Amino acid sequence: MVGPNYDSRRGRLQKKLREAGIDGLLVTGQANVRYLTGFTGDSSWLLMLSGHPPVLLSDTRYETQLADECPGLAVEIRDAGGTLPRLFAKLARVAKVRRVGFEADHVTVSLLRQLENSLASGGPEAAVLTDTAGLVERLREVKDKFELAEIREAIRIAERGFAVVRSSLRGSQTETEIRYLLESAMRDFGGSGTAFEPIVGVGPTAALPHAHAGERRVSEHSVLLVDWGAAVKSGYRSDLTRVLITGKPTKQIEKVYGVVLGAQRAAISAIRPGVRCADVDRIARGMIADSGFGKFFGHGLGHGFGLEIHESVRMSPLSEQVFEAGMVVTVEPGVYLPGKFGVRIEDDLLVTAGGCEVLSSVPREFEDSLSGVLA
Amino acid sequence: MVGPNYDSRRGRLQKKLREAGIDGLLVTGQANVRYLTGFTGDSSWLLMLSGHPPVLLSDTRYETQLADECPGLAVEIRDAGGTLPRLFAKLARVAKVRRVGFEADHVTVSLLRQLENSLASGGPEAAVLTDTAGLVERLREVKDKFELAEIREAIRIAERGFAVVRSSLRGSQTETEIRYLLESAMRDFGGSGTAFEPIVGVGPTAALPHAHAGERRVSEHSVLLVDWGAAVKSGYRSDLTRVLITGKPTKQIEKVYGVVLGAQRAAISAIRPGVRCADVDRIARGMIADSGFGKFFGHGLGHGFGLEIHESVRMSPLSEQVFEAGMVVTVEPGVYLPGKFGVRIEDDLLVTAGGCEVLSSVPREFEDSLSGVLA
Repeated sequence: MVGPNYDSRRGRLQKKLREAGIDGLLVTGQANVRYLTGFTGDSSWLLMLSGHPPVLLSDTRYETQLADECPGLAVEIRDAGGTLPRLFAKLARVAKVRRVGFEADHVTVSLLRQLENSLASGGPEAAVLTDTAGLVERLREVKDKFELAEIREAIRIAERGFAVVRSSLRGSQTETEIRYLLESAMRDFGGSGTAFEPIVGVGPTAALPHAHAGERRVSEHSVLLVDWGAAVKSGYRSDLTRVLITGKPTKQIEKVYGVVLGAQRAAISAIRPGVRCADVDRIARGMIADSGFGKFFGHGLGHGFGLEIHESVRMSPLSEQVFEAGMVVTVEPGVYLPGKFGVRIEDDLLVTAGGCEVLSSVPREFEDSLSGVLA
Repeated sequence: MVGPNYDSRRGRLQKKLREAGIDGLLVTGQANVRYLTGFTGDSSWLLMLSGHPPVLLSDTRYETQLADECPGLAVEIRDAGGTLPRLFAKLARVAKVRRVGFEADHVTVSLLRQLENSLASGGPEAAVLTDTAGLVERLREVKDKFELAEIREAIRIAERGFAVVRSSLRGSQTETEIRYLLESAMRDFGGSGTAFEPIVGVGPTAALPHAHAGERRVSEHSVLLVDWGAAVKSGYRSDLTRVLITGKPTKQIEKVYGVVLGAQRAAISAIRPGVRCADVDRIARGMIADSGFGKFFGHGLGHGFGLEIHESVRMSPLSEQVFEAGMVVTVEPGVYLPGKFGVRIEDDLLVTAGGCEVLSSVPREFEDSLSGVLA
């Protein structure tokens, strides 16, 4: 397996900077730094200045790790008494650049004040900072070969973990016990961790889209919702949701399940390059509304993922993005009946030249969800 | 056990806002929102406006959870097509306030632009946003009775977990295996999770202050470093580090251990109300430098913790803070010899009227660290 080509990624970013008419970019978003360099630590920035080699700004804690993870990349370590903003200002001054972009989504107002103060102390010739948004995130939307292989592996591990949970399901298990079993199974299959804290919800807990696993037992309700994913060592993730019917299914449960699955199917078959994300969201949302459950679907239809569990693009009524081949996204409609139960079905997709490929393969027909009445 | 008194916490904040001459505060830092309301979700803000009851701004995903966790607190849910900044602007307009603070450490530049645009669309009478920093964090520095009890419990769970690791240590274990054993033991003793991803480092890995557990085996080196903590359900944490000597101790290992422990002891005995954090840092740092290891101690001496693992106050050469009774902090000097090994000894302390109380009780003499030559 060939590893990521960081030079090529940075080359594409340089091109974007030239197009934007800026002399450089201070990359402070942690996942963006990792994407462009391979560095897995935190508190470190990548400075890209036109006409100069890229340089990582960090501190002594990370010297050894940087040498290991980013061979060949220039590194500047701040003094024990110094700060990263001051180190940045020094490098910008030496490089004599004029307009340097910063990542407005990853810089707090406090940090911007510090950066500006550090630059200002360099005198009237100092560089000026300018807002940018999403420059690196946009590059990350389309996954390369390496990333796709890692995401496929993260899906495979998640699916094997779920199969263990499913095959060992008992009425006496609590949500938390299932969560821990799932986490440990994914580790056994080679995961380096979970993609996020798994959501395991029985009945009314499943009606809370962001519930934590608690002490409800499987036998307390017929609906069990599991939203989970694995992470692999390179940082890539997977993100899936399934509902298991662990007791006697009521007509209402079957109806809601059918509505959600129908909406997911319609959305998936609409995804292809050139289609607007908002339009796909509208298809699923419209179908759920037509079935009378419109007000019980309050979140977006799906999102990109990769190094982070939520990445650009977003599928929501407000999204202005358009699908491109190579994007990897979730599609996850849901219906949540407060105090009763919730159903969400979530799969992972790759947008292809002709449409899309569903990367995840856990069966999702209503019949597949039936786990029998558990003792 | 009496729970937290959120009214009293918000009352103290209101007083600070009056002193600062502002009409309110938009609290966007997640741990700050939790501290002031008990809400454990994310993507939700607390708006405090003088002369108006506090109100939580959120979305439909959290309606049920908010009713459970924050009984009696006013909640405003944004429309599916709306945004929190627009909801904030509407509430500020209705309340006719003039100057509203925002948390500059928890608001990105992008979010500030959105907040300003939303306010501006309300016309010339609209409120003005003003930077604040650390208002809630400063309240959180001094722990109340409830918080102290929770932190003591988080320490107790961490210590029981470490005892399991220690008693079952084998030369064939990998760092990752020890990490998972520690995590699962802490759960068994009632922890709701880890305070952070435990650091488990053998030999050269222990020389990286922020290493992840990997595949090195205990038998590969005489030094094993474990930096770990538990979290309890209420969100409070603990944070400890111990080094175990798992093989034949060399003179150098013993010397470094003694230097670090001596520095920690001296720092602990200097802590009392009124003393500057930087002065305590200087005592430990000076002792390590005098022993010839100055350049191998590159991080701060310690930090506050509670709902988050790193909170105000900080002990570093640059700190301008002063100890007060009721603060809870770590003291964790370290010496890291690249490619060889590292020693860090970390305990949790409560600043008391007369000095400080060491809350953690894992033995830390050099003799206590000796685990015998492991098979």
